[in-house]
Amino acid sequence: MSADKPIPAKLKARQPRGFVDRGPADVAATERMLSVIRESFSVYGFDPVETPFVEYTDALGKFLPDQDRPNEGVFSFQDDDDQWLSLRYDLTAPLARYVAENFDALPKPYRSYRVGYVFRNEKPGPGRFRQFMQFDADIVGSGTVAGDAEICMLAADTMEKLGIKRGDYVVKVNNRKVLDGVMEAIGLGGEENAGRRLTVLRAIDKLDKFGPEGVRLLLGEGRKDESGDFTKGAGLHSDAIDEILGLLNAAEADDMVQDAIALFPTDYEAIQTMSGLGFVDEEFKADDSVAAAAVARSRFMINDKYRAGIQELTNISALLQAAGYGPDRIRIDPSVVRGLEYYTGPVYEVELTFPVTNEDGQVVRFGSVAGGGRYDGLVGRFRPEPVPATGFSIGVSRLFSALKAVKSPIVDSRNELPLVVVTAMDNKSPEFMPGYQAMVSALRQAKDENGRPLLRADLYLGASGFNAQMKYADRRGAVCAIIQGSSEREAGTVVIKDLILGAELAAASRDVKDSAEHKAKQAEAQFAVPVAELVEGVKRVLARHS
Amino acid sequence: MSADKPIPAKLKARQPRGFVDRGPADVAATERMLSVIRESFSVYGFDPVETPFVEYTDALGKFLPDQDRPNEGVFSFQDDDDQWLSLRYDLTAPLARYVAENFDALPKPYRSYRVGYVFRNEKPGPGRFRQFMQFDADIVGSGTVAGDAEICMLAADTMEKLGIKRGDYVVKVNNRKVLDGVMEAIGLGGEENAGRRLTVLRAIDKLDKFGPEGVRLLLGEGRKDESGDFTKGAGLHSDAIDEILGLLNAAEADDMVQDAIALFPTDYEAIQTMSGLGFVDEEFKADDSVAAAAVARSRFMINDKYRAGIQELTNISALLQAAGYGPDRIRIDPSVVRGLEYYTGPVYEVELTFPVTNEDGQVVRFGSVAGGGRYDGLVGRFRPEPVPATGFSIGVSRLFSALKAVKSPIVDSRNELPLVVVTAMDNKSPEFMPGYQAMVSALRQAKDENGRPLLRADLYLGASGFNAQMKYADRRGAVCAIIQGSSEREAGTVVIKDLILGAELAAASRDVKDSAEHKAKQAEAQFAVPVAELVEGVKRVLARHS
Repeated sequence: MSADKPIPAKLKARQPRGFVDRGPADVAATERMLSVIRESFSVYGFDPVETPFVEYTDALGKFLPDQDRPNEGVFSFQDDDDQWLSLRYDLTAPLARYVAENFDALPKPYRSYRVGYVFRNEKPGPGRFRQFMQFDADIVGSGTVAGDAEICMLAADTMEKLGIKRGDYVVKVNNRKVLDGVMEAIGLGGEENAGRRLTVLRAIDKLDKFGPEGVRLLLGEGRKDESGDFTKGAGLHSDAIDEILGLLNAAEADDMVQDAIALFPTDYEAIQTMSGLGFVDEEFKADDSVAAAAVARSRFMINDKYRAGIQELTNISALLQAAGYGPDRIRIDPSVVRGLEYYTGPVYEVELTFPVTNEDGQVVRFGSVAGGGRYDGLVGRFRPEPVPATGFSIGVSRLFSALKAVKSPIVDSRNELPLVVVTAMDNKSPEFMPGYQAMVSALRQAKDENGRPLLRADLYLGASGFNAQMKYADRRGAVCAIIQGSSEREAGTVVIKDLILGAELAAASRDVKDSAEHKAKQAEAQFAVPVAELVEGVKRVLARHS
Repeated sequence: MSADKPIPAKLKARQPRGFVDRGPADVAATERMLSVIRESFSVYGFDPVETPFVEYTDALGKFLPDQDRPNEGVFSFQDDDDQWLSLRYDLTAPLARYVAENFDALPKPYRSYRVGYVFRNEKPGPGRFRQFMQFDADIVGSGTVAGDAEICMLAADTMEKLGIKRGDYVVKVNNRKVLDGVMEAIGLGGEENAGRRLTVLRAIDKLDKFGPEGVRLLLGEGRKDESGDFTKGAGLHSDAIDEILGLLNAAEADDMVQDAIALFPTDYEAIQTMSGLGFVDEEFKADDSVAAAAVARSRFMINDKYRAGIQELTNISALLQAAGYGPDRIRIDPSVVRGLEYYTGPVYEVELTFPVTNEDGQVVRFGSVAGGGRYDGLVGRFRPEPVPATGFSIGVSRLFSALKAVKSPIVDSRNELPLVVVTAMDNKSPEFMPGYQAMVSALRQAKDENGRPLLRADLYLGASGFNAQMKYADRRGAVCAIIQGSSEREAGTVVIKDLILGAELAAASRDVKDSAEHKAKQAEAQFAVPVAELVEGVKRVLARHS
């Protein structure tokens, strides 16, 4: 570059709002978490599939046909042939496209899982990003609720494999048909009431947040929040509101169990006939599906849709019992509705029940980390035949926070290999670097008894002096540092410094420091070995801290 | 939906050009491959880091300042504040932004690795996609060529860990300063010749493709290809062309080795003084860096830049020797230049040397799967201080093809858990589903002696009859199928059908089929066990085929 050119202004290194970087501990622990989920899904017979990040906007269902442009909530751009492309906003719409495109080649029912980032062009906020990861499992081409039951069991097993104890999670199941039946009965059936039905759904979905009184307002005229903002309600009459709220109150209904069993005896009989895999639990039978019974008591039992919903829930309940999943793991809960419009049958949600302290200092349940349901219409958008489907989606970063909250071993950084830093005391003289290079290479070849790598080894490659190099080793969390100055070089030795023990000793009181024991430990914390015994010496230090 | 609404036209399920889906075998095998690379990079002290897919266009260096819009080669869209955002087109530009933004918080030198998809808004073609995966490792904040040497060793180790044998790959190293020195000497120095220097670089980069005569044309007036298209050349005089071509011809220079060692004795002496880690190989010394010597013979030795380049290569050579990496794994090759303009020092390329048959039926070397170099200017775009950096990038899908070509065990599908399909013979009657559900759940809990899952188990959830269910099991590649009809149910048993042995027996000749041995095997291929012994029975079948 010639000297008379103006120096260009420096760019500012910055990120667009709602996008974040992730550092080493998070990346490594998330990777371990994803491996556990992959294996869990795989054991259930699900196969991985991967679709690209970019799809035609119309295939995602995000094209606004009246306005000839994409929904603003998705990141979109035009291809060179002017067609609109978008970044995927979930993993379900691309799956529907994939299955439709490869319909004849896929085994059906088609069980698959997918993991990856999705994008929302929405206003970011605390814990709300414009790029976030989902992990989905779906069964496409099966209309039986046995598929929904399988997804619920898979969700429960996956939580336990990730280190979330039984009792700290619950999979809640409900059926949209139950609520649809009630809505039909109170006069909200038909295409013309689609908007009001959605308002009802969203009101019920707020039960956790606003409580029954808040939902009552949202089902009626509307609700004003603390800031004075008014949300218009569904405008239902108080009788209708009572019916819906009654439906959600599972706790009142303990004595209704026998009624439900009397109504749908078939599956309970089936359980009796099942052969002896040792799964059916006497206690479970007594406890039984309290909540299913609660919904069964409603006067809407006369309604076909409602009956179908209850029948499906009872079938799910029988399948869960057969496989040994009691209500401590999976239970029917009439308050679960899921906010999305496209669900057509069973819906489910994975809730973590252990307490955490929220941003306002209140102790609350951790809450939902995954959810899903049956969506029999989505694949059918592309196909001449109806294609039933069910599936669920894990919010990966939320689940990751949960694993950290319960201190799951999966996200423990002790799962990483220990780091050894080879310092380069004479780094001003390039002729000594090959010697340091030989040491770090020898360390990298160290293996444990199973032939697996024993450690990570780093050679200091900066230009700073020895003190800065020791700080570097600390900052990187190294277990030990390797040092060779001129005197060691001449003696054919190398010094191994145990940084963990060293830090402990440095923190000791003056009295302790004068003791003979302390001095003996100091000798352990920093010792010289012949260069040829470097790896053995490091192994001794690692063994102290494993 | 009311009956009088028109039925909407079905959407066509299709993908934008240059984007592809990936099926189960590819996804699972790629995941195993990435795990091996992760571990290999981790052992070298590299930490993972992840940056988002979306960056400010100017941070990527892809904003065209004169035209106030992004480069067409990247996918771009405007944020709601009208700033331009782009999908990342490589993993290096986001790293530069990340390091600059977090400069004070990062340990320096900063070793990191990253993996992920990148996007190019270019014309797709065979093997050229608009979304593809890269796996990068970089050392930022270190100006010593010891960093470049480390990256080369890391590349070599990674190839071997992936199952590519020594001799089937070579890491080639060169230094841009050598060529820059030559270009300066032949009058191509200075900012005003930047364009011609790039033309020279790109011409040399075509040596593999067009041979020395093709490069000669591209360095001179230009070259016409088979289709008649003319590529304008660098317009060099024939003397200058001879110098450059001489520089690339390593084979001529065997007798120049001793000259180079005489010129740069220091590092060779350092090797002599190195203590006994058992790495220095006598044979290696004799063989020595032939190619480094070849470039050293040039008359441009008088030129400072050239001398600096040779000195750096000699230092790299000494480091490689010290760590025991002979020229069978890493060697200096003056023909490597890399097409990118931003490299400032050592450049390197990982070439796979085993033969493959290309699309035209010719047997060729597999070719390059990774490459990189020193880019001391990129991070400095954001920072007041200069920030030297070096790194390389693996083309993941190309490397994946290579592993398949050499039949690496890493990509072998036998690494997957075997699949067992539980059929649902009486799937028309929902009351029998809980029994099948109990079986599949029991299978999913089967563990090997280390407590790891033993198998994958799938319950057939479709509506088809028994023959279709057996076809489903075949299509999914199941090892065995579990069958329970009414007679088995009454007897409390279940049938286990070994699909692999079954297929072998079905393929036998008529004579063989009549034999007693065949009949004995048939009994092994399909047998009944009490339901409680299902898992043990399946274990017997899996043991046959492991």
